[in-house]
Amino acid sequence: MSHPDPVPHPVPPYYAVVFSSRRTDADAEAYQEAAERMVALAADQPGFLGVESVRGADGSGITVSYWRDPESIAAWRSHAEHVLVQRQGRERWYQRYAVRVARVERAYDGP
Amino acid sequence: MSHPDPVPHPVPPYYAVVFSSRRTDADAEAYQEAAERMVALAADQPGFLGVESVRGADGSGITVSYWRDPESIAAWRSHAEHVLVQRQGRERWYQRYAVRVARVERAYDGP
Repeated sequence: MSHPDPVPHPVPPYYAVVFSSRRTDADAEAYQEAAERMVALAADQPGFLGVESVRGADGSGITVSYWRDPESIAAWRSHAEHVLVQRQGRERWYQRYAVRVARVERAYDGP
Repeated sequence: MSHPDPVPHPVPPYYAVVFSSRRTDADAEAYQEAAERMVALAADQPGFLGVESVRGADGSGITVSYWRDPESIAAWRSHAEHVLVQRQGRERWYQRYAVRVARVERAYDGP
């Protein structure tokens, strides 16, 4: 999954969840399917603003999702279907991952 | 350029610069060289904490650099050599890019 164009900017402040990961070799097809489903499901949640996601040939990936406020992020994190997929991620799909929740203070784009 | 492993977590708060981009087809070798040079140069700046960067086969990329405070980010943004490379980026290397400066409030990792 790769989202070709940067997400347009709402006016800050808003929130970003930076999810950095390194995949295992397991389960390419099931992983891909779950990743696409999670993007579609996230997009339906209250407070969702957009997502950017890139995975490299070496299995490293970064997904940044944008949200209106910390409450939207907390609700998404505890969404039942998402919780199940998070567990599969920990058990099967990721060698390592890191999550940062950050408040976007400034945003600009170009060229 | 792809950094395989997520950057270890300092204790929040700290800052993240999320740079999302879509490359042009121009100048693959010069771009690559400049990208690597910028990572090395950034790593020498006061307040630099780490960087994660992935580019996909379709030309979309996300680089997240982590910094101690907004002052470190402002200093890096106006570093003379970096300013020259930013100009090349705008003029030749990127179809589109977006920059977000965000304050990291929570961080965790796994599995």
